Formats: sequence, C-alpha cells, structure tokens
Amino acid sequence: MTNKKTNKLKILNDPIYGLISIPNSLIFDIIEHRYFQRLRRVSQMGLTNLVYPGANHTRFHHAIGCMHLMQKAIQVLKTKNVSISEKEATALCIAILLHDIGHGAFSHALEYSIVNGITHEEISLIFMKKLNEEFDGELDLAIDIFEGNYERKFFHQLISSQLDIDRLDYLKRDSFYTGVAEGNISSDRLIAMMNVKNDELVIEQKGIYSVEKFLIARRLMYWQVYLHKTSLSAETLLVKVLQRAKELSKEGIILPASEPLSYFLQNVITQENFKEEALEIFSRLDDYDVLTAIKQWVFHEDIVLSKLSEMIINRHLFKIEIQDKAFSAKNREKLKGKLQEQLKIPTEFLSYFIFFDTVSNQTYDVTKPIKIQTKKGKIKDIIKMSDHLNLKSLSKPVTKYFCCYPKNF
Amino acid sequence: MTNKKTNKLKILNDPIYGLISIPNSLIFDIIEHRYFQRLRRVSQMGLTNLVYPGANHTRFHHAIGCMHLMQKAIQVLKTKNVSISEKEATALCIAILLHDIGHGAFSHALEYSIVNGITHEEISLIFMKKLNEEFDGELDLAIDIFEGNYERKFFHQLISSQLDIDRLDYLKRDSFYTGVAEGNISSDRLIAMMNVKNDELVIEQKGIYSVEKFLIARRLMYWQVYLHKTSLSAETLLVKVLQRAKELSKEGIILPASEPLSYFLQNVITQENFKEEALEIFSRLDDYDVLTAIKQWVFHEDIVLSKLSEMIINRHLFKIEIQDKAFSAKNREKLKGKLQEQLKIPTEFLSYFIFFDTVSNQTYDVTKPIKIQTKKGKIKDIIKMSDHLNLKSLSKPVTKYFCCYPKNF
Amino acid sequence: MTNKKTNKLKILNDPIYGLISIPNSLIFDIIEHRYFQRLRRVSQMGLTNLVYPGANHTRFHHAIGCMHLMQKAIQVLKTKNVSISEKEATALCIAILLHDIGHGAFSHALEYSIVNGITHEEISLIFMKKLNEEFDGELDLAIDIFEGNYERKFFHQLISSQLDIDRLDYLKRDSFYTGVAEGNISSDRLIAMMNVKNDELVIEQKGIYSVEKFLIARRLMYWQVYLHKTSLSAETLLVKVLQRAKELSKEGIILPASEPLSYFLQNVITQENFKEEALEIFSRLDDYDVLTAIKQWVFHEDIVLSKLSEMIINRHLFKIEIQDKAFSAKNREKLKGKLQEQLKIPTEFLSYFIFFDTVSNQTYDVTKPIKIQTKKGKIKDIIKMSDHLNLKSLSKPVTKYFCCYPKNF
Amino acid sequence: MTNKKTNKLKILNDPIYGLISIPNSLIFDIIEHRYFQRLRRVSQMGLTNLVYPGANHTRFHHAIGCMHLMQKAIQVLKTKNVSISEKEATALCIAILLHDIGHGAFSHALEYSIVNGITHEEISLIFMKKLNEEFDGELDLAIDIFEGNYERKFFHQLISSQLDIDRLDYLKRDSFYTGVAEGNISSDRLIAMMNVKNDELVIEQKGIYSVEKFLIARRLMYWQVYLHKTSLSAETLLVKVLQRAKELSKEGIILPASEPLSYFLQNVITQENFKEEALEIFSRLDDYDVLTAIKQWVFHEDIVLSKLSEMIINRHLFKIEIQDKAFSAKNREKLKGKLQEQLKIPTEFLSYFIFFDTVSNQTYDVTKPIKIQTKKGKIKDIIKMSDHLNLKSLSKPVTKYFCCYPKNF
Repeated sequence: MTNKKTNKLKILNDPIYGLISIPNSLIFDIIEHRYFQRLRRVSQMGLTNLVYPGANHTRFHHAIGCMHLMQKAIQVLKTKNVSISEKEATALCIAILLHDIGHGAFSHALEYSIVNGITHEEISLIFMKKLNEEFDGELDLAIDIFEGNYERKFFHQLISSQLDIDRLDYLKRDSFYTGVAEGNISSDRLIAMMNVKNDELVIEQKGIYSVEKFLIARRLMYWQVYLHKTSLSAETLLVKVLQRAKELSKEGIILPASEPLSYFLQNVITQENFKEEALEIFSRLDDYDVLTAIKQWVFHEDIVLSKLSEMIINRHLFKIEIQDKAFSAKNREKLKGKLQEQLKIPTEFLSYFIFFDTVSNQTYDVTKPIKIQTKKGKIKDIIKMSDHLNLKSLSKPVTKYFCCYPKNF
Repeated sequence: MTNKKTNKLKILNDPIYGLISIPNSLIFDIIEHRYFQRLRRVSQMGLTNLVYPGANHTRFHHAIGCMHLMQKAIQVLKTKNVSISEKEATALCIAILLHDIGHGAFSHALEYSIVNGITHEEISLIFMKKLNEEFDGELDLAIDIFEGNYERKFFHQLISSQLDIDRLDYLKRDSFYTGVAEGNISSDRLIAMMNVKNDELVIEQKGIYSVEKFLIARRLMYWQVYLHKTSLSAETLLVKVLQRAKELSKEGIILPASEPLSYFLQNVITQENFKEEALEIFSRLDDYDVLTAIKQWVFHEDIVLSKLSEMIINRHLFKIEIQDKAFSAKNREKLKGKLQEQLKIPTEFLSYFIFFDTVSNQTYDVTKPIKIQTKKGKIKDIIKMSDHLNLKSLSKPVTKYFCCYPKNF
Repeated sequence: MTNKKTNKLKILNDPIYGLISIPNSLIFDIIEHRYFQRLRRVSQMGLTNLVYPGANHTRFHHAIGCMHLMQKAIQVLKTKNVSISEKEATALCIAILLHDIGHGAFSHALEYSIVNGITHEEISLIFMKKLNEEFDGELDLAIDIFEGNYERKFFHQLISSQLDIDRLDYLKRDSFYTGVAEGNISSDRLIAMMNVKNDELVIEQKGIYSVEKFLIARRLMYWQVYLHKTSLSAETLLVKVLQRAKELSKEGIILPASEPLSYFLQNVITQENFKEEALEIFSRLDDYDVLTAIKQWVFHEDIVLSKLSEMIINRHLFKIEIQDKAFSAKNREKLKGKLQEQLKIPTEFLSYFIFFDTVSNQTYDVTKPIKIQTKKGKIKDIIKMSDHLNLKSLSKPVTKYFCCYPKNF
Repeated sequence: MTNKKTNKLKILNDPIYGLISIPNSLIFDIIEHRYFQRLRRVSQMGLTNLVYPGANHTRFHHAIGCMHLMQKAIQVLKTKNVSISEKEATALCIAILLHDIGHGAFSHALEYSIVNGITHEEISLIFMKKLNEEFDGELDLAIDIFEGNYERKFFHQLISSQLDIDRLDYLKRDSFYTGVAEGNISSDRLIAMMNVKNDELVIEQKGIYSVEKFLIARRLMYWQVYLHKTSLSAETLLVKVLQRAKELSKEGIILPASEPLSYFLQNVITQENFKEEALEIFSRLDDYDVLTAIKQWVFHEDIVLSKLSEMIINRHLFKIEIQDKAFSAKNREKLKGKLQEQLKIPTEFLSYFIFFDTVSNQTYDVTKPIKIQTKKGKIKDIIKMSDHLNLKSLSKPVTKYFCCYPKNF
C-alpha cells in the first residue's frame, strides 16, 4: 500500500502532441510537488476565455508541453552530434518545467495590482531555490541554466530567447485552444531545424521560411488574441478590481477573501519581504481565490468595487476604443464629459471607470537575434537572410492607444 | 454609448467546429444572461483534469457546441423536406442551450453531497421557467420541447435520446480535450444520416456502421475516461469532502466558505424548498467557491476534513481497486484491518477513508431504441439491423466494484 | 558531383505523422531502389478514389508510414526491457517496408485477372530475395522475419498478425485520406500498450478498449469503404476489363498496351515461371500502364472490351445490388431477362455485363488471437477479456451477395 | 434500371472540409461529364510527390473543394445582405469548378513542352464553350463571369484575384497533402471576413492579420514546396524529356506513346488549330499517358531520351544549385567543363544535361490590390493598412537562379 516508484504515472495525454512521457522519477516528483500542482489552478491565458471560450488551458499543461518539446529538441541536437549528458538533459527539462512557476493567479493580473513589488520571474527563481533545498541540490544545474550562469550558452537560449521552447509551446497551445488556427506554428519543424554552433542555438538555413512564418504567427496571435480588444478590456477590468480591493484594504476595510488573498491584499509585498512566509502563502493563491472573492465583492457596499466586480462576473465588459495615436487631452476630456452626462457616473468615481492606456508589441527584437546557419556554415542574423520580409521594419515596436469605459452604469 | 443590437457578438471560435454563429438576438440575449454566463465557471468533466490535463472545458462551451450542432441538424432535416419553422428552430436551439443549465459545481459532485434533494434536470427546468418570465414567454416552446410536451415527438428526441445532440457534442468534445482520440465520433456524418419518419427521429440505413461506431466510442469513453479509476478516485474524494463539510455544518460548525456555498452547506435543500431564494443563490455557486473552500479546509482542525481536502488539492488521490465482482464481507474486513494496521488510521475515522462503491455503464438501452430507416423505408431497431455486433449483449449494464483508500495517512 | 552519403535525404513529411526519419543508409538505399520506387505508382486503394476522391495515396507512402510506426514500436518495447538489437531493429524496418512490394497495379486487381498464378505475398518474397542478392545478404534477417522463420516469434507478429504494424498504418492512413474520420484508430496508443511475453506480442490490459475500438473501426472501414458498393463495382469492372483483355490476347488479338502489360496479357504466369524475366518486367508494371491501356481500349472494336473500358474511364459504373442472402437461380434469370429486354444486350455478351459475386469480412479471427496481458501478468485471448462486446459473435465471417449490371448500354 | 435523378450522388467526403454537397443537378451533370472526370487523372502538384510523398491529390479534388468554398462564400455574402440570385450562385460554382479544366497532364509540364502554343486558361475556355453547347447555354453566365464580362465585378474577383477561392483551396489543400502544416491557411476565417463594397470584393478590417498570414503562408509554400529545389529539378526534368520527345518526333521518329500523346508529339499545336479535334484528343490526355510513355522511353535508343526518362522513373533527379544572382558566363563554362570531365558526357548532349534557368515569385501584386474595408467603411489597399509588415517590399518579385545537372551519367 505504499507509493511504489514503479507505479508512477509515466504517460500523459495531450490533445496537441498525443502521448507525453515523463522521463525520470526526479522530474516525476517535481511535477507531483504541491508547488507545481498549483499550476493546475492557474489559467494560461487569464480571462481570454471570455472571448475565446475554448481557452481554459492551464499553466500546468503548458509546462508539461514545454518539457515534451524540450525532450524533442534534445533528441534532435544529439543526432546532430551536439553532446548533451543525461544530467544536462534532466536539468533542461526541469528548467523549462519551472520557468513560469512563479506566475500568480490569472497569469499576469496580480503583477499589475496586488503582488507588484516583485516580478513573476523572480518568484519563479525563489520557488526553484526552495525546491532545490527539498530535493537536496538536485536542481543546481537547472537553476544555473535558468539564470544564464551555465557556461554552455545555448542551454539558456533553449529556455529563454526569441525562439525558445516556451514560445514554441505556448503559441501552438494558445492557437489550438482558442481555435485561432492561423496562429498554429510548426514546432516540430522548427525543432528539427535547430542546431548548435559556437555554443549558440542556430536554425539551419532551410528553416528560414519557417522562422518567418513563426514570427508572423506570433504577431497575429498578439493582435488577434493576446491584445484582442475584448481580452484587453477583461484583463484591464481584473487589474482595476484588484487595485480597488487593495486600496480599500489599505484603508483598513476587510473584504471577503480567502486567507491567501487577504494576505496579499493587506500587505505590501516587495522583493525584499517575499521570504518563506510570503512564498508559502503565495503557493496557496490561484485563480480560484481571486474569482471567488470577486463574486462576493459584487455585493459589497463600495460602489466602485461592486460595479467592477459585477462587470467581470456577468461579462459586462468595458467598451474599448483603440487607435494608432495617443488620445489628445481634449479628446480625453470630451469622452469623460460624455460619460458623465450619459451614464451619470459621479465625478469622484470617474477615474475608476474611464482610463487610457497603451499596448505594444514587437515582432522581432534585433538585440537578441535569431541566428541562421547558412549552407556554407556561416552564422547570420535572420534579418540579413530573409529576402524582402523586412524583419527590420517588423522590429519596430507597434504601440496602440486605448480607452475603456462602461457601456452603462 | 449604449449596447446597440447591431454590435452584438455574432461569431465564436471553437477549436472543434471552427466558427460558430449565434443565430438571432433572442438566443444572444439568453447567452449573455448571468445564469448562462455562470456555466463558464463550471467544468464539464469535474476533476477529470487531474488525469487528463487538457480537460478544462466548460459547460458553457459544451452548450454552445450543442447549439451549433442543432443548427446543422435542423439544416439537414430541412433539406430532407422535414418542415421546421423559424420559431421551432429557435426553440430547439434554446432547449439544447439550456438543457444542462442546472448543473452545479463540478457538474455532478453536488448532487451526491450538498444539493442532493433535487436533480440537476429539475434545476434546469426551474432556471428555464425563471428565464421565461424575464423573456416574456419567449421560451414557452423551448420548455415544451424540453419537457417532452410538444406534439412533434422528434423535437424532444433531438434534446434527449440515445443519439441526441447533447451526446454528439459531449463525446466529441470530451474526446478532443482529453486527447483520447479514440473516443472521437463523426457528429457531422451522424447528423447527415438523420431523418424523420412518423414524427420520430431515425437514422438512414447507410449510417448503421456510424451508429455502431458511436456506441463503441461512447463505451470506450466511459471505461477509459469517465469511469477511469483515477477520475473515479478524484470524484469520490470530492463527494466525500463535501459530505463531511455538510456533516460538520449540521453540527453547527461554521466552515470557511463563500456565502453561496455556506447556504447550501447549512440548509437542507429539497425539491420543495428550491424556490426563488435557493435558485438565486445557486446561480452564484460554481467550481470556484468549492475549490477555494477546500483549499482553506486543508488547514481546518477536523482531521477528516483537512486530510481529504489536502488529498484533492495536492493530488494525493485515493488508491483504487476495481474488480468485476463485489468485495466479500471477509475481503472488506481484511482490507480495513490492513489499512488500520499500516496507516494507523484511528478506528472512528476509518469509514471516511475506506469505502466500497460501484460504477456501471450500459452501452445501449433497449427501452429507447435507436431507429433505423431501411432502404425500403421501414423502421427497425438498430439491434435488429446490426449484423453480429450483438448490441443486445451490449445492452446489459456492466457493473464494476471498487474500493478506495489512501496511499498514506 | 557524386552522390555523397551525407547528402542523403533523411526526413520525409507525412500529413499523418509529421516528420518521418529514415533510420540508416541501408534502409535509405532500399527505398531508393527502383523496385521500391515503383510503389510510388501503385495506388494503395485501387479505384476507391472514384468514390472517395481524396484516396490517392500510394503503396510507397503506406510502406514508409509502416516503417515509422515500426520504429515507434521498437522504441516502446525497448523501454519495457524487451531487448532488440540494432541489427534486429533494422531487419524489422526492412521487413515491414517490403512486406507489400509484390503488389501489382491497383493493388489487387491483377491478382484476379492477368497475374493470377501467383500471389502478391509470393512476389514480395521474390523481390526481397532479389534485393538481398544485390545487397550482399544484408536482408537475410528481414527475410527470416517476413517468412516467420526467425526464432523470436513476436518479430513476425509485428509484421503479420491481427494487430500488426501494417494494419495500424493502413487503417489510419485510409481513414485519413478517404475522410472517413470514423475509421481513425489510435495507432500511437495501441503501440504504447504493446509488450512481449513468452516471445509473443501482447497488449496490456488497460489497452482492451483500444483494441475493441480498433476492431470496430476496421469493421466499419470494411463495410463503409473497402467493400463500399461503388468501390466494389469499380473494382469488379477493372477485373472484368483485364479478364476480357487477357481472353482476347489468348485468341491472338494484339491490344494496344505498354510492353510490360503486353507481357502479362500474352503469357500465362504461374508460380513456377515467375523468374528473373517476369520479375524484371513486373517491376516495370504499375497503375499507369493499366489505365493508359484501358483509355485506349475504349476505342477498340471488341464491344465488350470497349464498353467496359469506357465505363471505368468515364465513371459510368455498374449498378450494384447487395443482399444478405444468395441470389436464387430464379432471381438471377429474372434479372438477366430484364437486362436483355431493357438494355438490348446481345445474349452472347450478357455474361460480361451481369454477374453475381460475394464479399465477406471477418472482424476477428479466433484462430490467431490478440493476446492481452492482465494486470496480474497472465495472458488471455481478448475474446475472454472483453465484457459483452461479444467478439466471439464478431468472429463469424459476414458474407454479402451482390449483383452488378450496367445502368445503360 | 435507368439513371434516375434521385439516385444521384449528393455528398462527397473530403479529408479537409468533411462532407461536401453538390448543390444541384446541373452541377452534378457537369461533374459527371467525361471532360471533368479527366481531372481525376491529373495530379494537382505535378511531380511534387517525388519530394512530398503525400501530395497525390488531383485537379478533380481541388475543383470540388473550390466549389465547396464558393458555396460558403456565397452564404457569407448573403448574410451580409449582398444579393446573389440562385442563378448567379450556380454560375459562380460552375465557373470555379471549371476554371482549371484546361490543365494538361501534370498540371504545368505540357505548357512548357508539347502543348505550348496555347495556355491552359485558353483551353479551359474552349472546354467551357464546348460544354455550354452540350448543356444548351446553361453555362452562359458562368462563362461571362470567368471571362470577366459580367457587370458585377466581384463575381470575377471570387474566381480570379489575389484572394480568390482558387487560392483559398489550393493553399489549404497543398499544405494538407504535403504535410507542410505551416502553409495552412484559415480559409473559413478569410471567407467570413469577405464583403462587397461598390461591387468589389473587400475584406473587413478585423481580417487584416489573417490576410497578412495568408500572404506569408503563400510565400512559404512557394519557396518551401512549389519551388522546392527537388520539385524544381523533377519538374524541369519532365519538361526536358517531353521537349526531347517532341524534337525526335519532329525528325520523324515514332516513339512509343498512346494515341493522344502521339498526336501532341507529332503536331504543332497553336491557339488557331486547337479546334474540335485537338480538344477531343486533349480530353483523353492525362498523367497516365505521359508517365507510361516515359517508362517505355527508358529503353529507347536515343541516349538523351532514355537517360532523362530513367532519371524521372527511378527518381535519380538532377542535382540543383540555387543562388540569388545569375550564373556568370565564366561560371557556366566552368560547371560545364567539370561535368564533361567528371561525367564524360559527350559534348553534343551536354546542353540536354546541364541548363540554367530562373524561378521567381511575388508575394503581393500591387497592381491588383487586396482591398480592406475599414471600420469606418472606407476602402483601402492592404498595403496602406498593414503596420510594418511592409507589403510594399514584399511586392517586389524575388528571382532565384538555378543550374541543374545529373549526379552521374
């Protein structure tokens, strides 16, 4: 009746890749750890499911998918005579499994509201170090790779670069679950084109069009999904609700909330004070605490909190206007006036219900080039290889300006 | 700045069917209603995602998918000269959209624990009647169809029968999201084979093998997914936790829980007292309340509640043994003894940690036959048409006996 | 400017499996051999594309797909500690690659008409032996496995049994290209469930429902695709044309035909005389010779030959009646009479235009059982494991009787 | 026993779109016509299957797929209040069905070799006019639309423009069958974004990224598939064989070939003399005649013809070098010398075995802009709408220079 190693689950079903194997029992144990299991309760795409109802996949599934692609990449590189030891392979898998373990509820919303003194990457690292203690140093190499401290440069590039395993999974996965088939990328082919030259990750020349396609697919996913106006409206609303809740908490008002959520509402979290206690409580905080609280706040007496909460729960989202230029001061005043007049929003609340912000995306970052290995063995930035796609032009960040306000009040 | 009809969302992305259109503004308004929006927060497959990590789809998405298939079925029947008026078509879509609106958190768990005096079908009907009031009687025909009161018999069969639209969507959808490709069915082809004869839904003869395949796929999904031993273990655990919570609540212990969940923990709900108030509170109860509460119960002083809660949250599921015969009294005692001895579970708690139950499934129900229209125009039960598949034999319910207990304590 | 080994094509695209690798240069060279390249010009499903227009895939592609699945199976078995040496692995891949190399034009038609003194399996073996000469004995082991002479029994079972790699590819592939999604099987999962016990191929118990599903899918493919009445009609027509052509050739009439086709029209081929010369000429005969000849025969003065040819080319297929019982003598006469009267077919040609035949399929062959390894390690015939699917009943061959005749003359 | 209208095949399976319906009996009869049935024997992608073994789909299937998408487009436009009569809808379907009916064997090869006095578009029109006679003028409107003579401009644009139904099907289909998943486009979504403004086909603004993605996918398909170096090598080889055959025929040498192929080898075909007789014989010429002849030419005494033929049949393709700049005269001479020296090709044959050519592709043609309807209702060229993709730059044709020669002789 004991948990025998041999009984361990070794295969997982994935709608995208088919069967996924867990390579060894260290990785199995990490996956079983409650820190990692928490990711089952963190949605990968935040509130995007309000727009794309299929997008309910979790950080857990994405991490598992990354581990699978990493195994494929390792296999490909090995057949190309890149030496990767068993230990290094395990470390790569662990590093990619845990690269996002620090994400809070709804993936991004907390960072802009109640856990804003520390980034999710920093929290990921804290989690990894804590796990490393529990696993007696078996994560040492994974942490080195994650932090970019490992001498073999391409190891870190597989975890974090413009063509890393993370992106290869999330673009494919998000495209799949949203049903935006156009965002689909050929992860398999891109991995098959990978190689290592001078310790750097490169793509073989015949993979150029696949890389271009990957960049354009990513761009499409940004504008059509991640920065879709309704997603943006929902995401903004979520941040606003949490900001208002923190504001009220600061004033000493006790809002209905689970214990972990209360902790982060009532305390100011910084990189410095995010220690043992905070980590432990953070590890108990997920989408469920947040949405359950917001559902209760619908009935709170604070009109700002209750109105914003109701909007999320019943999907009465902000109306949103997006444009290529900033809203002029005059324009802003005009919109506010109109809102005040038509919706009768009291002046003191106005700033909670109309706001102006920007979103921005960059298709290609010239400072961290994707490198192509030419047929003759030279290494070139893809920008110089791609005939006429003009990646240079695509490397300029595109910024859009938007304004949100309720449809009624 | 008002919500203009013309701005209404008309197309939804579905990873399975591609683009789904919402046919008219009445249906759009029903979908937008907060009762229906709640289904976004009810997972279609309960805790099955603990086994199949892709299975995070919601009741909302399933209902939308059903509406889509219903539109296809209506179109097919019309081309075969079955007259269906615009009003009837809308009623069919509404009936299928709302057929499951009464499902509680995690789809089935509440029915076996805290909301057990009334079935989800009865609650669906109460919701529909309440919506009918709000929509000034526009749901009259949909309700008649749903209840089987409409004179044209096949209307109800499209909503509820052995080959109804509900099954055509959920089998396809559950197969898709779990990644169990073998459960995939050809909904399109089955719908293309539908016809109406003597006001009854029939399948044309050339569709026989497709029906057989559908039945076998459904059988596979039952044993491989719905009644998968780990799913079963998780589901059982959830029911046990909620039962324990209700037990403690009856003793006057106030457990941390959201307001709606507290209501159902602290009150005995029956068909009789499920009125306005209960409906309203039920409409605010979903997966989020339940999981958030369980996460807090991990730290409760009641050892049974905390242990069971911890097992769900950290996925330390029961070990489960399944067999074809009932466990003998002797066997039961032996297992209990072993458990007590090895895990040191105190006698008074033993009954919470080891239990015996059964699961059962019937591939084909002879009392509500699927009817085949032969090439010569006769109607026959598929049992009599299928050579050698022996559906008769498949119509015997298969029962399996299982026993659950923790791996450690 | 020489064909360097290092330049060899190593990866092939497959719409079904993604990227397929060719494991080593011996296998690469076999694939490049003109005997194997001929399979590019032999359609896998004969004239089925007249019914399912997507079914244009070739024997070449099927063989490559088999090799891919074989590599997967080898990998799975190795992780389960079944020892398979590099040499054995290569032999398995070669055996499955070449198992169907003896198929003639349109896969089956020749065997029933002009090359009917020898089976395609026998021709496969002759090809393999000839290749073995050219490759200096490197195919020895592959041939042993193919012939069932290798001591390790499961090797042959992977090539030929009720759950062999051949079926795992062709069911999946034929389902894919015909678009009959219901015939899709989960080859991946079935392979993942494979194991070896007492040198026999077994399926682990948890794979039972997958095997059932596979058998039902195969059954569906038989009745819905392979024995689809229109496919049957086309296939029959093709055989009749070739039989008539051979008949005329025997009478000394020289029909327009390519050299290889002429050879087989003008000579009686038996197992005995199928030597060097016949093999060489057979290796130059494929779908293209046959269809090109038939297109010319449309204009031949023999009315039987020209009429039958025209029917194939312009897809004026036979009308076909299928029933569960044999056509009675009386019934046959009646049909003939009607045909003679209505279509004015001269009596002497009647036998070419109306004929009676049977098709038959057996879902499960009890004499070569699929073996299941129970959780306790025992080996049982799946018939005894499957609750209520009643495979016993499915093991009775189903025979159908059909009659073909032209729609007009 | 007559061919009753009611028995007509109404549904076709398509691996890509599922079930395809044939809308009415006129269209059914056109599909059944032997002119159209010929397309079953013309491969859509020529010899590309030598590189991508799944690419065996036919012109027939592509045409059927186009008809399906056209029906969808008509449905979408109708819901947007673009009036399209039943008669116009049928004409659109016929025009797209027949737009490529003039393609010769292997789609493009004949145009560059033996039927080079007339384009395939011109032959399509001749076929359509001939069919129109047979169908008593029922194709009048279809022909007007095809020729661009119909007053409603967008009708022709659906048949032929930078975003026509033809491209929406062939990109999707070719991507599907080659397994180059990256070329997949979202035809459904692009069609859903179509509208008509001022009688011109436009795409709604929210479809911009889908159009960009479509252009990039098309570009990828060109360089990765259509102009893939091995495809190019095979295609070139095919043209060379046919040119040599025509050359020998002109000298009075009678080559083994079917009657229709002989006709085109032995006659000079021009637009003027492509009348009744030529059309009829052309309608009997397809891939089968060509490949069967080439197989026989392998044994011809002309060393050029036999060598080139052998290379195709056994897939001993040319080696090919591709570069961005033209080969200099010096370079050409050098290559020739090397070839002569190493392969001992006699001087008089050298020009048949080494040649220099170019390929070129243009991602976007500015002269026939894709028009976007902005949210405010204005019409703009997509070039002006797309931020930073720089379609202007993509509109410059890219030309590559290549040189082919055999690996051995």
